[in-house]
Amino acid sequence: MRTPFNHPGASSSSTVRADVAVIGGGVVGHGIAWEAQRSGRSVVLIDDAPGTGASWAAAGMLAPVSELHYQEEDLLELMLDASSRWPGFAAGLDSATGADSGYLTTATLAVGADAADRRALMDLRSVQQANGLEVEPLTVREARKREPLLSPAIAYALDTPADHQVDPRRLVAALRLALAGAAQELPELAVAGAVDSYAVPDRAARLLWDGGAVGGVRLAGGGTVLATETVVANGLQAGALDGLPDGLELPLRPVHGDILRLAVPRHLQPLVTSTVRGLVHGVAVYIVPRQDGTVVIGATQREDALSGAVSAGGVYQLLRDAQALVPAVAELELLESTARARPGTPDNAPLLGRVPVPGASVGGQAGHVPGLIIATGFFRHGVLLTPAAAAICRELLDGKSDPRWAPFSPDRFSRPATAATSPFIKETA
Amino acid sequence: MRTPFNHPGASSSSTVRADVAVIGGGVVGHGIAWEAQRSGRSVVLIDDAPGTGASWAAAGMLAPVSELHYQEEDLLELMLDASSRWPGFAAGLDSATGADSGYLTTATLAVGADAADRRALMDLRSVQQANGLEVEPLTVREARKREPLLSPAIAYALDTPADHQVDPRRLVAALRLALAGAAQELPELAVAGAVDSYAVPDRAARLLWDGGAVGGVRLAGGGTVLATETVVANGLQAGALDGLPDGLELPLRPVHGDILRLAVPRHLQPLVTSTVRGLVHGVAVYIVPRQDGTVVIGATQREDALSGAVSAGGVYQLLRDAQALVPAVAELELLESTARARPGTPDNAPLLGRVPVPGASVGGQAGHVPGLIIATGFFRHGVLLTPAAAAICRELLDGKSDPRWAPFSPDRFSRPATAATSPFIKETA
Repeated sequence: MRTPFNHPGASSSSTVRADVAVIGGGVVGHGIAWEAQRSGRSVVLIDDAPGTGASWAAAGMLAPVSELHYQEEDLLELMLDASSRWPGFAAGLDSATGADSGYLTTATLAVGADAADRRALMDLRSVQQANGLEVEPLTVREARKREPLLSPAIAYALDTPADHQVDPRRLVAALRLALAGAAQELPELAVAGAVDSYAVPDRAARLLWDGGAVGGVRLAGGGTVLATETVVANGLQAGALDGLPDGLELPLRPVHGDILRLAVPRHLQPLVTSTVRGLVHGVAVYIVPRQDGTVVIGATQREDALSGAVSAGGVYQLLRDAQALVPAVAELELLESTARARPGTPDNAPLLGRVPVPGASVGGQAGHVPGLIIATGFFRHGVLLTPAAAAICRELLDGKSDPRWAPFSPDRFSRPATAATSPFIKETA
Repeated sequence: MRTPFNHPGASSSSTVRADVAVIGGGVVGHGIAWEAQRSGRSVVLIDDAPGTGASWAAAGMLAPVSELHYQEEDLLELMLDASSRWPGFAAGLDSATGADSGYLTTATLAVGADAADRRALMDLRSVQQANGLEVEPLTVREARKREPLLSPAIAYALDTPADHQVDPRRLVAALRLALAGAAQELPELAVAGAVDSYAVPDRAARLLWDGGAVGGVRLAGGGTVLATETVVANGLQAGALDGLPDGLELPLRPVHGDILRLAVPRHLQPLVTSTVRGLVHGVAVYIVPRQDGTVVIGATQREDALSGAVSAGGVYQLLRDAQALVPAVAELELLESTARARPGTPDNAPLLGRVPVPGASVGGQAGHVPGLIIATGFFRHGVLLTPAAAAICRELLDGKSDPRWAPFSPDRFSRPATAATSPFIKETA
């Protein structure tokens, strides 16, 4: 691929200008970049290894209903908003690329292995129904009629028709295709025929400031991206970015997850037709069927010392619990074991929005650091929330903001500022 | 790498002449080739993917004592002969290459998880002691003093000091180095500077016959290797080789095995200092510590439909049983899951020797098909038996044969021949 920074003759001090610079090429960054581009803006996406972080190991469940289980009810409105956007988002993407983004309205079956798991799922069901969400208890017989390979020993099953899925690897590929296909020639690029001129294969080193506003990004390789708006969407790495507003704390922590990809032998296809989300003796496991005859098994959440490595204990737990729900998992072929870290926050909700400047106001409204949007900390929900994050960022680019998303303000974990320290406003570098 | 068949200008119909052609580049084929070369013969080794078959997934336990467990007492003499050759074989290899062949005199600890496993190991111990083999029961306290990370819940431990190990991947690499370093220029090669001129990166298609004797090998790529002696050492593929003597049956079957390679985090090193061979509720599992801080976990034996694929059930079983013996296995990093098929035979003993011609005799002794040696079917014992197979083949090349190895005659599963059909003697092609 030819890009501004690797085409013949490009120097390491190249400068690119765009309306929007997006730092971070996971699902969220790509989704925001595509939405910004669809709004008529020129976009540069900065990542030296796009799609290989948390997105690479995501199962792609679009599960606002089931994810209520994790006591993140404060996120429900955002998750439901995102869920409602998915059909249109996927259709727009498919239409832009002529390719398949991997979005499927596969239903989800929540399954409990033992009596305690049944009680936990029944409690969850009460909360789901109190929130007006559609869930339907099934007898074990009904569940096994729908999924014949489900273990007869399960204790409980709950149909969750509104929870769907997308293949995150296909999704990133489709978003890249859409971005590349629609890429406008950027000023000062002059790379004739470069199909992915929107992509800068480098790491962001620091934000550039210009008169109290963020004006772009200095790259690790020495280049510069000048942009009217900069979106920080590089997951865990956001916390380490130089040049964030003084006093702004992005308390991101790595929550590791192991995921397995397995091939289903022909005589066992389809292993399951629904996404099976299980609770096995209190531990979560899911089995997500893909269109290509493979399944993805995941759910571990580790905050241990193994960092990015695949945990033997994690793989063991996934295979054990998946077999408890669907015994034929033992007969599958293990294709891949992958581990990645997700960017967790103290309240498991994203850091999403502009950065308020306490005391400052514009036209009676609270003022913000100009030129800067934060979009990180999506934890377990990055894939689901991508269309919502994209739409919210587009509103912010358009100068609007929706009070519904105020609880996700990226400064909510920052210390109260004093007027004397000019909080959040950086001196021009 | 430049070789006779891929150096610039080589044609697909190239012909190479050597004293010995070895078909198959696993540990056994490489061991035989090196021994033949050390005897002053020119050698060609034929394999399009050397070292990537069963050898790639072998744990490398050199365990004649522990392997008695599998009721293969008929093999004991051969395994003990091989075991006694290992120190000299490894020392010769290290000296030839200046490198480390990966041979270690790590002791083995046999461990039983429950009362039934204890009884099975006690029965095994009786057989081992009846055969004069050195084994020593340890109390659980003594075993855990030696291996502090061993589970306190184990039921039995048996010190087996004579069972050692080698890293099969290092071994193949060392044998290739030794062969390449000592490689004589072969007639008609004329490949100046080709360091691995002994290696032909191609598959054997058929044996060539010349007046009732095997005279070499036709390669799949069209080339020819002419040789005074041809050794068939290509494992499972031996049965599919064209041009074997009429009536000779090599009843090889694939027995699949899954093997895991894991990294031990620094705070857990060394996980174990002995090779731990466990019996967990009747199922075998082993944990082999390597010099580089990794461990290998294996022991599955599957004859199922997954062929060369890694079995999810196999990986699960290995992790489950290894954790039963050493709970800290859960904290390791899973680096690799590999599956390969081992060449099994009906009696689990190798097919090793010349092919007798019934009725024919030379100087009062039974006659054999000239120019042909079979060395396959090593099943679980290929790595251990390599020095013995190499020594036995060298004797055969020297015109000698040891009656101790007659039980492994490669024709023992072939139908009785009648004089009318000229058994085993092929018409010249």
